[in-house]
Order: sequence, then structure tokens, then C-alpha cells
Amino acid sequence: MKEINWNKLGNYLKETQLLGSIQNTLYWDQNTMMPKEGASWRAEQLTYIAKKLHARNTSEEFSNLIDSANEELQTHNANDTKLNDKKRNIQLLYQEIDRQRKLDPKLVELLAKAKSEGYQNWQQAKLESNYQIFLPFFKNLIKLRIEEARQISDNLSPWETLAQPYEPEISKEWVFRIFNPLKEVIPFLLEKSNEKKSKNWDLNKESQNLLCNKLLDEFGRNCDLVTSAESPHPFSITLGPRDYRITTRIVKGEPLSSFLATAHEWGHSIYEQNLPSRSHQWFAWPLGQATSMAVHESQSLFWENRIVKSKSFAKGFFRYFLEQNVPFKDHLEFWRSINVFKAGFNRVEADELTYGLHILIRTELEIGLIEDGLDPRDLPFEWNKRYQDLLGIKPQNDREGCLQDVHWSEGAFGYFPSYLIGHIISAQITSKLEEELGPLDYLIEKKYYQRIIEWLKENVHQYGRSLNAMQLVKKVTEVDINPDFFINYLNKKIDDLI
Amino acid sequence: MKEINWNKLGNYLKETQLLGSIQNTLYWDQNTMMPKEGASWRAEQLTYIAKKLHARNTSEEFSNLIDSANEELQTHNANDTKLNDKKRNIQLLYQEIDRQRKLDPKLVELLAKAKSEGYQNWQQAKLESNYQIFLPFFKNLIKLRIEEARQISDNLSPWETLAQPYEPEISKEWVFRIFNPLKEVIPFLLEKSNEKKSKNWDLNKESQNLLCNKLLDEFGRNCDLVTSAESPHPFSITLGPRDYRITTRIVKGEPLSSFLATAHEWGHSIYEQNLPSRSHQWFAWPLGQATSMAVHESQSLFWENRIVKSKSFAKGFFRYFLEQNVPFKDHLEFWRSINVFKAGFNRVEADELTYGLHILIRTELEIGLIEDGLDPRDLPFEWNKRYQDLLGIKPQNDREGCLQDVHWSEGAFGYFPSYLIGHIISAQITSKLEEELGPLDYLIEKKYYQRIIEWLKENVHQYGRSLNAMQLVKKVTEVDINPDFFINYLNKKIDDLI
Repeated sequence: MKEINWNKLGNYLKETQLLGSIQNTLYWDQNTMMPKEGASWRAEQLTYIAKKLHARNTSEEFSNLIDSANEELQTHNANDTKLNDKKRNIQLLYQEIDRQRKLDPKLVELLAKAKSEGYQNWQQAKLESNYQIFLPFFKNLIKLRIEEARQISDNLSPWETLAQPYEPEISKEWVFRIFNPLKEVIPFLLEKSNEKKSKNWDLNKESQNLLCNKLLDEFGRNCDLVTSAESPHPFSITLGPRDYRITTRIVKGEPLSSFLATAHEWGHSIYEQNLPSRSHQWFAWPLGQATSMAVHESQSLFWENRIVKSKSFAKGFFRYFLEQNVPFKDHLEFWRSINVFKAGFNRVEADELTYGLHILIRTELEIGLIEDGLDPRDLPFEWNKRYQDLLGIKPQNDREGCLQDVHWSEGAFGYFPSYLIGHIISAQITSKLEEELGPLDYLIEKKYYQRIIEWLKENVHQYGRSLNAMQLVKKVTEVDINPDFFINYLNKKIDDLI
Repeated sequence: MKEINWNKLGNYLKETQLLGSIQNTLYWDQNTMMPKEGASWRAEQLTYIAKKLHARNTSEEFSNLIDSANEELQTHNANDTKLNDKKRNIQLLYQEIDRQRKLDPKLVELLAKAKSEGYQNWQQAKLESNYQIFLPFFKNLIKLRIEEARQISDNLSPWETLAQPYEPEISKEWVFRIFNPLKEVIPFLLEKSNEKKSKNWDLNKESQNLLCNKLLDEFGRNCDLVTSAESPHPFSITLGPRDYRITTRIVKGEPLSSFLATAHEWGHSIYEQNLPSRSHQWFAWPLGQATSMAVHESQSLFWENRIVKSKSFAKGFFRYFLEQNVPFKDHLEFWRSINVFKAGFNRVEADELTYGLHILIRTELEIGLIEDGLDPRDLPFEWNKRYQDLLGIKPQNDREGCLQDVHWSEGAFGYFPSYLIGHIISAQITSKLEEELGPLDYLIEKKYYQRIIEWLKENVHQYGRSLNAMQLVKKVTEVDINPDFFINYLNKKIDDLI
């Protein structure tokens, strides 16, 4: 069985991945170590690498290598156990290069400029809480991204086309089908949940770092494989096939923020750590990569909400908090304090119940902007109206309203739904996990984290991109993605809390 | 005045510098943050960048760009105030590309392999304290580097040729002329210095970090420009025109190691921070770079030895040590404890008096190996003999003997002298600084660190590579480099201590 062209393609992909991982290293350093004044040179380094990467990912040479490897694959023995995987790799590579190569280079250039201008002016607009500063750049971004969608696809709607890189094979119809029940249920549950006042307290930096480290130790973090650090916004990133990094941040007045972020980023990282790594599936090939943003988010949300915010976790871990002199009399009081459900303006700080409403609003608005003629000028009004309707609160200004998120400022439309789909997938997969391993509360009480990780690896992580999110969830749980598991979980949790 | 070709060359150099600074970022991360298991992928990233850099630095395109810029320069008006600088840039670029392009590509490949094998086997040999493991690889390295020198130069001796990249325009005759007086004087001074027993004490990591930070604050470190971290071996590195990093390390049982390393690396960094930055001298051009290893070392040694090990520094800073409960009754006792002169086997841990002897031995031996037919098999014997003769002690094994340093394992011959020339230059420049600004003890007592930095910038740093080490020292002090200033300083210090 000849693998000459296959290996040539593999070498090309490896070199691309070397460059990609260098880009990631620069990004990591920028957010964890770089002194402020290094910013402009770092931007030049990143632009340099981005150009090289773009050239590699759209080159004639790359295209020819895929063709040759594909031809070679046709001659392979059907008994090759890897044949289907290999075909899937090729299919995904075609998908990406076709997408790239359909774009007019002129448009690519205009988009890069519009994203950078959009981001800069959004920062200023947010600072001054003045949407008008951002508006002209936002209009331009929307126009260009609609044009981009037009150039790429003739069978998906523009919003669907833009959402594909985050959530492959997503459709509007499907999103609303799984989101709409939540639009009904969440406001009802919020009322039922009996809003509690949250306590005012804090922990010093040392205590927070100590607790985060204790948490990672308990989860089985291997320091030779995973580095943790602080950054302005928490993230997880992979710098090599055996090099994982996670960050957290210390927020004044939010003593649990770093702890929850650590659990969240751990979930992202453990997914990446367990991606398949055999020759045709490793790091450099599409199959060795995460399948979608929603699946990624389902893994981080699992560790943040299902593990760390559970009653049994509070029971076992509370003693470490107590050593740091937290103002709670027992683990139950502590547990309640980290499970306060309350409508707020801020998506990032939202609890797992109200979070979905923030996403629903953004999803409806961005589809409106891209497809249904919603005038960007009307965004603040439409935003505030929906917050009033769904959450019963009205932002006082655009900074805490429609200017709060970075995504649209860089033209990222179609990203937001992944967060809520992640909640939905997390609940659905967890229900299967509990069916097979026993109740989560029991597993956590026994600190069976390695069993949980093994199960997730076996059932979720090891598939990489061989299955998309819908196929993966169907394979694991035997039913299509649907919001019932999430709704049941929320119901049960609220009953437990009141 | 046309600058078309000049600017093209500048753009080429800038792109090279982007790549070079990316390489530095990978190196920085490897030593400060990377988890152990990331090592093999990181090595692949670094090899990838090194190949690209080598290709850029030896390309036909680069060579042509230098030619064109040079031709354009001939047409320039003699009134261009930058003309001499520009010519010097071109001269230095020719020097480097000629050196590279004279080498047989086959030899370059063999050398890369020999360096990597040499380093690996040296590590093993050192671990087992068994020189025989390293010997065959060392022989091969020596053979190849002699061949390299032969291909590069026909008017310098082989050792001189290999030393040029570290110390431009160095000659054997000159080195021995400035080193030999030290060979006479140091053993005499060592006897006079009245060896003291050093105290056994230690400081915890937090105290050490606190003191290092306090030190950097006192020196005026700008956190927006300079990041500090820990690494296995302390170093200073520049990642961008406004991005400087330094590291230190905590060594068990050596409570001042991190503090002195911080001062040392600060000295390196402040030199880089003050390199010239006008258009034709910035970061990407030769003139924007440090002129030699010895000058670099003179700057780090200045902060480590002349500042931090001075009596007036001890007087002013001792209170911060006292807050960390150090076992000294006053600043004088503390000062004496950091100025113990004593013969030892280890170069890195040597004091400023005996350090020179370590370098003398290595310089003689490496010239012997490269030029005078010293058989590598005899190295351990020759090494130990010289330690016995000059320092009066004999290494018990090769680990603490001829296997202690990394330099030769990677074929770096001609590097060692820079350390001692650095001591010599530091003393000579400091004497001029004192002449112009007043006694160092007074400046330190007044904490006039910014005055000192300004003086160094004005008189030393701002010249970049427009002057070589010899020219620079002559310009600053009006006399040629010579060891008298260093000998005077050592004499005075020892008198002060006894």
C-alpha cells in the first residue's frame, strides 16, 4: 500500500502545525508574560505568522498535495482499518481549502482591516459607552461578512455559512428548535429559584492560587504536561502534542472567579489532551482536532458547573476553603452561595440558569443583522428591549448592554450559540455518564475523577473531528441533541436549592 | 537622496528580526513556562525557525539587497550625517554573510549534527562523570570547527576565526597581553585576601523573590518594559524593541544566588534597553545590536560586582535583608559574607577574584586544542594540572573538572575569554565613570542609579556596533583596554576587606 503522497501531505500539515503552534506560543506569552510595551512588536510577529499560515492554507501546493493523497487513497485496500478515517481527513481538508479559496483575495484583505478597525473602535466605544463610535465600523464589518458568506456558499444561509467554522453543519432551524424550549422554561425557573442575596467577601491572591492548585491536583493535573498561569481573560491553549496551558484570573471582589475559571479551562484542556493521537489522527491532521466549539464548551462547562458547583464537591472541598478563612458556617451555605441564580446584564458573569437567555438574545440579534435586515443603528434599542422582556432588567448604558462582548467587534457571527449548545450537550452527555458510571454526586464524593476522565476520553474526546457535534452526541447518548436533559438538570438543581 | 534599495534591505532585515525574536520568544517560554513534556515539539519548532533564519541570512536575495543598498549609498551626499553609520551597517552585513557563504553547506550540516550530539553526550558524560563518553564526539567537533575556520579565513588563526562572532577583531596576542598580568597577580592577591569561612544560611523562595523585586525597583525597572521570571539558568533576552526579559533562579543553600543573578541580568538588559534606536540603528540593523560578548559581560558584571557587592550598597539595602531575618548582626558582616574570596572548582560560583583564573585555564586549553595539537584525550590531565598550579586545588573528578561547562560541548570555542575581558572592561569603564560622576560608593549611597544608567547609555550603550570593544573602551577612557584598572580595583577591595 503506497503512502507516498499521503506522507507528503502529512509533512506539509506538520509544518503548518509547527507554525500554528508557534502562533499559539506567541499568543500565550502575550497574555501571561509580555510586558505592556511589547504589544506592537508582538502584533507584527503575529501578523507575520498569520500571513505565512494563510499562504500555506490556501496554496496551490497544498491543494495539489490533497489531490494526490486523495488519488492515492482510491487505490487503497478496503481492508485498511484506517481508510474511513483517512477519507474523513481528506474531506475536511477539502472543506477548509475550498472555503478559503472561494474568497476574493481583495475581500480577505478588506476583512482583515475591518476586523482590526472594528476591534479598536469597539474598545473605544465601550470605554466611552458610546455605540455611535463603533457603528460605522460595525456596519462595514456586517457588509463584508455578508459578502464573504455569499462568496463561500450557495446552499446555506449567510448566517449559517458564517457559523460553520465554529459549529460544523449547524442550521438556523435546528438552533431554534433546541433553543426555543429554553426561552419558555428559563424565565419560569428563574422565578421559582427564589433569588438569594449573594454575600460580600473576598480572598487574597495567594489563597486563590493555592485553592486553584489544590483543585488541579485533585483533578489529576500532570505538571509535566500542563502549565497554569494568570492572564487578563482565562483561556486554555495547546502549544504542542504534549504541551498544554491554562490560565485563570484574579478578580477583586469575586473570590471564586479564579477557581471556577480554573475548572472551566481544565475542562477545555482535558478535551484537547485526550484527542486521538495515532498517526493519521494526531495533532497535525484534522481528525486530531476538537470537533466544534459547542463540544469544547460542553467539556469546560461540565467541570465548572457539574463538578465544582455540585453539592458533593462542596462537601469534600469545603475544608480547603475553610483553611483560607471563608465566611461560611458549613459546606451547604458555601454551596448555596456559589449557586445563586439571578438575572444580570453581564453574560460572562451569568449563572448557568440565566446564561441561556443572554445567548438567545445574541443569537436572534445576529441573525437579524446578517439576514433579516435589522438595522445596526437599532441594535441598542433591540438589545435593551429583549433584556427587559426576557430577564426583566434594562441595561443603563451600551457598555453594559450591546457593547459588552468582543465577538461582533471582530465580525465573529455564529459563535454565540455554541455556548448554550455546550450547556445542552454537557447535560445530555452527563446523563449518559451517570447511567454508566453512577450518579455524579457519588463519583465526586469518592473523588473518582480519573474514572470520569477515562469515560469522557473513551466516549467523547477520542473521536476528534471524525464525528461532528450532532453525530457525536447521538453516538454517546443514542438520542439527538435536545434541551430536555438540560431542562431536567436545571429543574432538579433548583428543587435541590430551595 | 534615494533610499529605495536601502529601505528594501531594511524591510528584509526587519522580517529576519521578526523571525529571530520569535525564536527568542520560544526560547524564553521553554525556560520559564513550558512543561517538561513539551520539549520535543519545542525542539522541532526551534529547528524549523533556525532553518528559515539560516536560509534568510545566506540567501542570494539578501546578498543582492546588500549589494544594491551599498551601490545606492555611493551616490549619497557626503553631508548625510548618517552616512558613516550606514556604511558601517553595510560593512557588518557583508562580514556576516561572507562568513556564512564561505562555508560548504555539507560542513554546516555536519556541524549542526556534531553540536547536537556533542551536547547530548556531554550531558550524559557529566552525569556519569565519565569523560570517555564525550571524547569521540568532542574530537569530531574540534575537527569540524577547525575545518570551518579554514574555510572562513586565511588571515586569522583558527582559534581567532572562531572567536570573532563573540569578540570581533580579537587576536591571541592581544588576549594574552591583557590576561598574563592577571595570571601573575591573582594568586598573590588570593593569598593576601585572607580566606574567610562563609556562613551556612538560607532564605525561602518568597523572601528571595521579594528581595529581587525590591532590587529591581530600586534600580528603576519599568514593569511595562521588563518582565522577570525564574528559569533553570539565569539569562537576559530581548524579544522586541520594547520587550525585555530577565530571569533568575533559586538555588537551595545559596541564599544570594538569585539576588546576584538578578543584578547581573539587569546589567545585560539595561545595555540592550539603551542600544541606539534611530532608523538606521534600530533593532533590525547591526548598529542596533550589542557590540561584543565582553562588553555585554562588562555591563552585567558592573551591576553584580561593582554595585551590589559594594559596601555602600550593603549599607543601604541591608535593612531589607534584615526584614527577612538574615543571620548577620550588621551590614558590614553581611558585606563581608558576600565578598569571600576562595579558590574553588566551579567557574560559575567563583568570586570576582578567582574567576579570572578559571578563564585563563580554559583560554589556554582551547587554543591548545584548536591550534597547538593538544590531544583531547589529555584534556582531563591538563585541566587538573592547571587547577593545581594556579588555584592550588585539584578536581576530584571530571564532572567538577573539564566537564563542568556547556560551551565546548556545542563547539563554542573563543567564548570564554569574553567573561574575563568583561571584568577588565568593567573596571576600566567604571574608573572613568567615577572620574566624571564621583565615587561609586557615593553614587550608590545616594541611590543615583538613574545617573549611572544615563552615563552608561551616553558613553557605552548608545554606540551599538558602531565601535568594537577595543574602540569603545578607548573612546570612553582614552586608553587602550588593559588590566591595570581591574588589578587596582581588586587590590583596593582586598585592602578594604582585610
